[in-house]
Amino acid sequence: MNRKLILTFSCPDKKGIVAAISKILFENNANILESNQHSTKSVLNPHFYMRIVFELDRADAEKNLKNIKIEFNELINIFNIKYELNDGSIKKNAAVFVSKEDHCLYELLWQTGSGDLFLNISCIFSNHNDLSSIANFYNVPFIYIPSNFTGLNINANNLKSATFYSNSLIKNVQEQFILNEIGKYNIDFIILAKYMVILSADFINSFNKKIINIHHSFLPSFPGAKPYVQAYEKGVKIIGATAHFVNEKLDDGPIIEQDVIRINHEDDVDELKKKGKTIERTVLARAVKFFVEDRIIEYGNKTIIFM
Amino acid sequence: MNRKLILTFSCPDKKGIVAAISKILFENNANILESNQHSTKSVLNPHFYMRIVFELDRADAEKNLKNIKIEFNELINIFNIKYELNDGSIKKNAAVFVSKEDHCLYELLWQTGSGDLFLNISCIFSNHNDLSSIANFYNVPFIYIPSNFTGLNINANNLKSATFYSNSLIKNVQEQFILNEIGKYNIDFIILAKYMVILSADFINSFNKKIINIHHSFLPSFPGAKPYVQAYEKGVKIIGATAHFVNEKLDDGPIIEQDVIRINHEDDVDELKKKGKTIERTVLARAVKFFVEDRIIEYGNKTIIFM
Amino acid sequence: MNRKLILTFSCPDKKGIVAAISKILFENNANILESNQHSTKSVLNPHFYMRIVFELDRADAEKNLKNIKIEFNELINIFNIKYELNDGSIKKNAAVFVSKEDHCLYELLWQTGSGDLFLNISCIFSNHNDLSSIANFYNVPFIYIPSNFTGLNINANNLKSATFYSNSLIKNVQEQFILNEIGKYNIDFIILAKYMVILSADFINSFNKKIINIHHSFLPSFPGAKPYVQAYEKGVKIIGATAHFVNEKLDDGPIIEQDVIRINHEDDVDELKKKGKTIERTVLARAVKFFVEDRIIEYGNKTIIFM
Amino acid sequence: MNRKLILTFSCPDKKGIVAAISKILFENNANILESNQHSTKSVLNPHFYMRIVFELDRADAEKNLKNIKIEFNELINIFNIKYELNDGSIKKNAAVFVSKEDHCLYELLWQTGSGDLFLNISCIFSNHNDLSSIANFYNVPFIYIPSNFTGLNINANNLKSATFYSNSLIKNVQEQFILNEIGKYNIDFIILAKYMVILSADFINSFNKKIINIHHSFLPSFPGAKPYVQAYEKGVKIIGATAHFVNEKLDDGPIIEQDVIRINHEDDVDELKKKGKTIERTVLARAVKFFVEDRIIEYGNKTIIFM
Repeated sequence: MNRKLILTFSCPDKKGIVAAISKILFENNANILESNQHSTKSVLNPHFYMRIVFELDRADAEKNLKNIKIEFNELINIFNIKYELNDGSIKKNAAVFVSKEDHCLYELLWQTGSGDLFLNISCIFSNHNDLSSIANFYNVPFIYIPSNFTGLNINANNLKSATFYSNSLIKNVQEQFILNEIGKYNIDFIILAKYMVILSADFINSFNKKIINIHHSFLPSFPGAKPYVQAYEKGVKIIGATAHFVNEKLDDGPIIEQDVIRINHEDDVDELKKKGKTIERTVLARAVKFFVEDRIIEYGNKTIIFM
Repeated sequence: MNRKLILTFSCPDKKGIVAAISKILFENNANILESNQHSTKSVLNPHFYMRIVFELDRADAEKNLKNIKIEFNELINIFNIKYELNDGSIKKNAAVFVSKEDHCLYELLWQTGSGDLFLNISCIFSNHNDLSSIANFYNVPFIYIPSNFTGLNINANNLKSATFYSNSLIKNVQEQFILNEIGKYNIDFIILAKYMVILSADFINSFNKKIINIHHSFLPSFPGAKPYVQAYEKGVKIIGATAHFVNEKLDDGPIIEQDVIRINHEDDVDELKKKGKTIERTVLARAVKFFVEDRIIEYGNKTIIFM
Repeated sequence: MNRKLILTFSCPDKKGIVAAISKILFENNANILESNQHSTKSVLNPHFYMRIVFELDRADAEKNLKNIKIEFNELINIFNIKYELNDGSIKKNAAVFVSKEDHCLYELLWQTGSGDLFLNISCIFSNHNDLSSIANFYNVPFIYIPSNFTGLNINANNLKSATFYSNSLIKNVQEQFILNEIGKYNIDFIILAKYMVILSADFINSFNKKIINIHHSFLPSFPGAKPYVQAYEKGVKIIGATAHFVNEKLDDGPIIEQDVIRINHEDDVDELKKKGKTIERTVLARAVKFFVEDRIIEYGNKTIIFM
Repeated sequence: MNRKLILTFSCPDKKGIVAAISKILFENNANILESNQHSTKSVLNPHFYMRIVFELDRADAEKNLKNIKIEFNELINIFNIKYELNDGSIKKNAAVFVSKEDHCLYELLWQTGSGDLFLNISCIFSNHNDLSSIANFYNVPFIYIPSNFTGLNINANNLKSATFYSNSLIKNVQEQFILNEIGKYNIDFIILAKYMVILSADFINSFNKKIINIHHSFLPSFPGAKPYVQAYEKGVKIIGATAHFVNEKLDDGPIIEQDVIRINHEDDVDELKKKGKTIERTVLARAVKFFVEDRIIEYGNKTIIFM
C-alpha cells in the first residue's frame, strides 16, 4: 500500500511551472495518479491552477515527502505559488448544521456511512430537536440550541430575564455557544444542510474556515426566502439547487455545484418542494465530495472544480 | 381519412364540464384522440383548463362540426367557457425575425422542411442581410430593413435629411414598415429567432397576436443584455435558454419552455455562446412546436403546456 | 375534506366511452381532479386506457360511490371494460426484499417517512442480517432467512441432515417460508430493492400480485449478472438503471421507469457501482411512486405511465 | 499569434513520464495550455495516456518544434511511447457519407459553417441523390452512386449485362469506385451520417483511416436494423444514439459518445424517429468534434475522451 497525497496550487501563469513541479515529484520517487490544470486566458493577468494526486512508496514516504515540501517551498519565491498538500488517507471533519428538514442530513449520513463520501461527520448542530434520533442512530453527537436559548441556563446567577436581551445580542450569545461547542470537535469545515438561520458575519469571521451551504434555487434566480414560492409564481419550467461557499453576503458566495429538475404546470408549491429535495441533497453531497477530495480551487468569486 | 380538430378551453372549475363537453362530442360522432386537463387547486378561484383532440368522419364532418360549435356556444353561458377550436390539418403562418445569428433560423427551417414542425414560415424579416441566402435556399421571402433605414427611400420627395429624425421616430417608421410588410403574408404569429432589436410596446399592441422570443439565459437569471457574460462573471455551473411570449416588459412574458446545459471553469464566454446555441435552438423549436399544435394555454403570467 | 378515488380502466377503443364515464361521475356528484387517457392507434385492434382521479363530498360519498360502482359494472358489458377503483386515502402495503446493499432500502424508508411515498412498508425480508438495524430504527419488522436455511429449525424432529436436500428443494422450502411470513402482513406488492436472489416461477405464481424489481443496468443492455462489469468492458458512456415488473423470465418484465447517468474513462467498475447507486434508488422510488398512486397500466409486455 | 500544437500519447505507466515530457516542452520554450492524463489502474499492465496542448512563439516555432520532435523520438525507446503531434491550426478533411436522411448532414454542415466544428467537409458521398441541393448550397462536391450502379458506364466496352454480376461483386465495384472518388480529396476520415449501407471489411481495410458512424440506438441495446422499432416493441422509457468508430463487426466498434432522450407511451415509432433525430445529430457532431480536436485515444475496444 502506498501513501496518497493531493497537491493543489495556483500561481501567475508562466512557462516552466509544470516542468518544475513534475521534476520535483519525479526526483522524489512520486508516481502521478491524476493531474488537472487550468489557465485563465486573461491577457493582462493570466493565472494557473493545478491539482495533482500522487503516491509515494510507504517505505521511504516520510523522507520523500519532507524533501518534496522543502523543494515546493523554494518554488514559492520563483513562481509565486500558493499551495496546499493534503494526505489523501485522512478524512476531513465536518460539523453539519440542520433545522427541521432531514433529507440533506440523511444523504450526508448515508453517503458517509457507505464510503461514497470520504468524510467524518464529527457533530450535528441544530436549532431544533427533530433530527436527534437519526443522529443517535449514526452515533454522531447532536448539539441542540433552541432559538429561545439565551445562555441563561449557563450563567443564570447574574441575570434577570431574557427579555432584557436584544435579538442581536441573543444571536451573538448563541453563535458564541455554537462556536464553542463545535470547537471541541476539531472541525475542518461546516456544512449547512438546510440550516434555516442566517449566520452573522461575526460567526463567519470567527470560524474562519470554509462553510458550504445548500440553497434551494438555481442561483442567481430566487435568492433569499421562499425560493420555491418565487419559482412557482414566476412559472419557470425547471427548478434547481445551488451549493456554494458562504461569505458575508447572503446567497452570494462562490458557486460549487448546481443541478436542476424539470417541472410543469401540475406542480404546486408543495410538489416543487418535494421534487426540489432530491436535487438539494444530490447537489449538496456532490459539493461536499468535491471539497473533501480537494477538488475545489476558488478564484475571484468563482470556483474551479477539478474532476 | 378523418378530419382532426383541436379544442382548447378554460373556465371557472365546476362539476359537469367534462361530462357536458364529452356528451356534445359523442352525440356529434366525434372520436376523442387525446385529452388533457388541469385544474388550479386555488380555494377562492379554482379554474379549469382542457385540451381535446378529436376526429370526425370526413363524410359528415361539416354537419357535425357545425353542430358542435352551436352546442359549445351554448356552454359559454352555462360554464363561462372561453374556447378555441382549430383545424389540425391547417398549418399556422409565422414571420421569423432574425439579426445575424443563424442557428435558430436554421433549426426552424430544417424542422419545418422535415415536417417535425407543422408550420409555414411565410417570411423572414431581418435588420441585417446576412441570412438572405439561406432564406433563398428555402424559397422563403426575405425582408431586409437596415438599422439606418428611415423610410426616406419611400418618401424621399418631402425630406431633407435623416438627421432630423429622432431615434424613436426612426424606430417607429421602421416598425410601421415591418408591420406593413409582414401584413402581406397573413401571419398568425411572430418568432423572434435571435432578433437583437427590442420591439416597442406600440409594435406589440399593433400586431396584437402572439410573439415568441428566445432569450439566451435561464430566466429570471440574467435578463437583459449579454446574459452569457453575466453567467460567466457569476460562475454558474449550468446555463440555459428560455422561450417566452413577448409582452411589454422586457424578458418578462410567460415562460413557454426552458432547458439547460452543464458548463465548467474551462468555458470562457465564447464557449458559453457556442454551447448555448444548441440549447437556444432546441428550446425555441420546442416552444414553437407547442404553439403550432395548440398545446399552450396562458394564465396569469404563466403557461400550461399540455403534452 | 372530500374522499378521493382513483379509477383506472382499459377497453377496446370505441366512441362514447369518455362521455359514458363522465356522465356517470357527473350524475353522482363527483368532481374530476385529474384525467389522462391513451389510445393505441393500432388499426386492427385499437385499445383505450384511462386514469381518472375524482372526489366525492364526504357527506354522501358512500351512496354516490355505491351508485358509481353499479353503473360502471353496467359498462363492463357495453364497452368490455376492465377497471380498478381504489380509495386514494388508503396506503398500499409493501414487503421490501433486500440483501446486503442498503441504498434502495434507505431511499424507500426515507421517502416513506417523509411522505413523498404514500406507502406502508409492512415488513422487510432479507437473506442477510446486515440491514436489520435500519429496519429497527424505522420500526419495521425484519424477517431474516439465511441462504443456508433449510427449514430444519422448524421441523427438526423428522430430519437427518440438510445435505439430503437438493438446492431446488431448499429454495422451495425457503420460498414457502417467505410466502408464509409475508402473508402475515396483508401485503399488496413486493419491492425487490437489490435482492440478489432469483425468485422461482413458483414463488411468482403463488404470490400472484405485483413484484417490482430494480435492475442495475439500462435494459435491455446488460441483463443478468454483473451489469456494471459488462458496461465497463463495453466502454459505454452512459449507464442506467431499470425498474420493472417481475415475470417468469429474468430481467424481461414490463419496464416501468429508467434513468441514466453519464460516466467516463476515469470510472472503474467500483466507481460505476457508486454512480449507479444514485440512479438505482431514484428509479426504484419513482417506479414505486407510480405504482402506489395507480399510475401504471400494463399492456402486452409494456407499461403506460399516466403522469 | 502563437502556433498551437496538440500532443497525444500513450505508453506503459512508469514514473518520470510527465517530468520527461514537460522538461522537453519547457526547454523548447513551449507554454502548456491544456493537459489531461489517464492511467489504467490495472495491476498487471498499467498504461498511461496523455493529451497536451501547447503553444510556441511564432518567431522560433519551427526550430523549437523540430527539437521537440527529436527529443520525443528519444523517449520512444525509453518509455515505449506512441505519440501523435498535430498542428492545431490545420483542419482535418472529412468525407461525409449519407443516404436520404438529412438531419445529421445538416448539423455537420451548419456547425462547420459556424466554426463550432473545426473541420473541412471535403466531399459528400451518397447512394441517393436527395441531398445534392444542400451540398450545392454549401459548395461541397457531391458524389452520387446509385445502388444499381455496376461500373458499366466506366468499363462498358467489355461487358454484357449487369445481371451477370453477383451482389457482392457489385458492392465491390461500387466500393472501389467510392474509394477512388474520395481519394481525390485528401481525406483524413469518413463520417457515416446516416449512411444506410453496410461497408465491407475490404472497404474498411483499404481505406485504413478512421470511420465514425452514428447508430440510432443506445448500444449495445438494439444493434442492427430498425432500432426504433425494437425500442418501441421493448417499451423502453429512454432512447438514445451512439457514435462509434467502425470496425469489421457491425455496430461493435469503440464507442465515442452517447446520449439519450426520455420517451413515453404516447410515442409511436414515427415519434421515436423524430425525437431520435435530435439526439443522433447532436451525438454525431460531438463525436466529430472530439475527433477533430484530437481528444480521442482508443484502447482495447474502448475510448478515452479528454475533455
